[in-house]
Amino acid sequence: MTPPAPSKLAMVPFVSVDNMMRMVRDVGPERMMTELAERIEADFRRWPAFDKTPRIAAHSPEGVIELMPTSDGKAYAFKYVNGHPGNVRTGHQTVTAFGVISDVETGYPALLTEMTLLTALRTAATSAMAARHLAPSDASVMAMIGNGAQCEFQALAFRAMLGIEQVRLYDIDPAATAKAARNLAAAGLRVTSCASAQEAVAGAQIITTCTADKQFATILTDNMVGAGVHINAIGGDCPGKTELHRDILLRSDIFVEYPPQTRIEGEIQQLDPDHPVTELWQVVTGRAQGRRNASQITLFDSVGFAIEDFSALGYVRERVARTGHCQMLDLLADPDDPRDLYGMLLRSAG
Amino acid sequence: MTPPAPSKLAMVPFVSVDNMMRMVRDVGPERMMTELAERIEADFRRWPAFDKTPRIAAHSPEGVIELMPTSDGKAYAFKYVNGHPGNVRTGHQTVTAFGVISDVETGYPALLTEMTLLTALRTAATSAMAARHLAPSDASVMAMIGNGAQCEFQALAFRAMLGIEQVRLYDIDPAATAKAARNLAAAGLRVTSCASAQEAVAGAQIITTCTADKQFATILTDNMVGAGVHINAIGGDCPGKTELHRDILLRSDIFVEYPPQTRIEGEIQQLDPDHPVTELWQVVTGRAQGRRNASQITLFDSVGFAIEDFSALGYVRERVARTGHCQMLDLLADPDDPRDLYGMLLRSAG
Repeated sequence: MTPPAPSKLAMVPFVSVDNMMRMVRDVGPERMMTELAERIEADFRRWPAFDKTPRIAAHSPEGVIELMPTSDGKAYAFKYVNGHPGNVRTGHQTVTAFGVISDVETGYPALLTEMTLLTALRTAATSAMAARHLAPSDASVMAMIGNGAQCEFQALAFRAMLGIEQVRLYDIDPAATAKAARNLAAAGLRVTSCASAQEAVAGAQIITTCTADKQFATILTDNMVGAGVHINAIGGDCPGKTELHRDILLRSDIFVEYPPQTRIEGEIQQLDPDHPVTELWQVVTGRAQGRRNASQITLFDSVGFAIEDFSALGYVRERVARTGHCQMLDLLADPDDPRDLYGMLLRSAG
Repeated sequence: MTPPAPSKLAMVPFVSVDNMMRMVRDVGPERMMTELAERIEADFRRWPAFDKTPRIAAHSPEGVIELMPTSDGKAYAFKYVNGHPGNVRTGHQTVTAFGVISDVETGYPALLTEMTLLTALRTAATSAMAARHLAPSDASVMAMIGNGAQCEFQALAFRAMLGIEQVRLYDIDPAATAKAARNLAAAGLRVTSCASAQEAVAGAQIITTCTADKQFATILTDNMVGAGVHINAIGGDCPGKTELHRDILLRSDIFVEYPPQTRIEGEIQQLDPDHPVTELWQVVTGRAQGRRNASQITLFDSVGFAIEDFSALGYVRERVARTGHCQMLDLLADPDDPRDLYGMLLRSAG
């Protein structure tokens, strides 16, 4: 007698990196980020419906491992993500991630997926979504300081959603800039490789910072930021890791995802705990104003929030249900009689 | 040109339910629980080395979904687990789980595994480990109130580690008792099926309660618990879910895993927040006394703690490394140049 095959209830769809790449290629990176942004904005519009908690971080000298859960009462999602700036030295990714979306009614996982790529896409989608509310409406040039794994996704999302035509690149490592310049030129963007951050920001209406060092760094100093600019600050995202000089923060109107998390992790960890900030969901819903005038400096102090992953996981779940591009994993024990877990074990011997 | 195969760094070993059942059969359930108990006790002995946090719970009317992370600074582990008492009605498991163990140095997951079966094993292993310190040394009869999925594992662990020879079963559903009686008699235990909880506890030196209702229930009343008994209370494990009458708690010396979590989830949620309890790790290390005399009532108010899962995941990781009984999942994006995630996507088209 052969052991019985696992039942349907035991199986959970799994999206590998390979299947995720296939999805991104099938949809197209810019269209997928645009669709993700729509979904993220729709979820920000119903912000109060979500359980929210600052992510649960385990810090070590080498980096951080985080769990980011949230739920809207129907679905539950969490992401596992690490951040290890030194990983590059051993050929590892700085950030890797995977996640799960579940049905609240049963608690059963409905999808397991890689999220290294998906996080890159949703982060850029969130930045562009925020910039649509905050950046000057005529923005066509973006400075990109930090040309690592997130760089191209940011540039393409800003082209697709804000009409950015030119990117001005700078990284302390010229090889990173060369890599990004090659990829973005091939994608049809006008690319200028710069020798300093100061040079990169010249003429840019939007400044994106996404460097990876885990230390208080000053990527931008006050004199580099002119009136009317929108700053999209991605890289300051854990305690002790910031990118902007404090004086810039004091001149800016600051927009954040979830204040209890951003106060710990974002650029605003440099400010008093009661420094005024505006929650992005309130801008999206019209309860708060985004950009007010042409001379205002707006700053999106982005750290990444669980609801963005929830949106992305929901997107992938729906798409996989249509395409079937996944593997089925025998992840959940499913005895014939739910109370007979031991009997299932016995009978599995066949 | 075919797209390049995922590199070794991209792959994470996955232990399916099928491979977990194979492991349990290969090792033998009782030996595996004994080895798990040794490992859990060793980790309890170095309790201060662990990052500890109460689990992160998302409650809904139907049940709860929890994340349980911990780390000893070298490895990081978390478990996803749900608890949905109504699931049995639709043929789902009340509790399903999976988990991951990672290397803190890189943040990379080292193993993904089913944990529905593994949780059943580690829960029973923990109960038996605690009972070795707390139960009367001559115990040979255990009452088991609640004959669901956890029941057989408890009985076998207590036979293997405490020499229990007879189990006295009771469940409000006679079909559950019949199932457990069949399985345990086949395993060579002396089994008595009882018509009431009162009848089940007669002559037992150890009383194990593991019922699943999410409500304040009274499985045991004060008059049912005689002097000298050890109570192994498994089922009271979330807010609003308890099994024992408060008067029993007041007569018992109470031992817990991690007080900040047990005060919220355990039987002691019925007591004042400063009611004295003893932490099990202090008994294990000899800093606190376990059983003092033959008339004392000891109560292990078990809710399950992340360190037990950490121990179990470490055990599985080592065993899988020896046997290779796993699948390799393409879970982590691994571009040739870690900063060139976008380039990997482009090149994946082949």
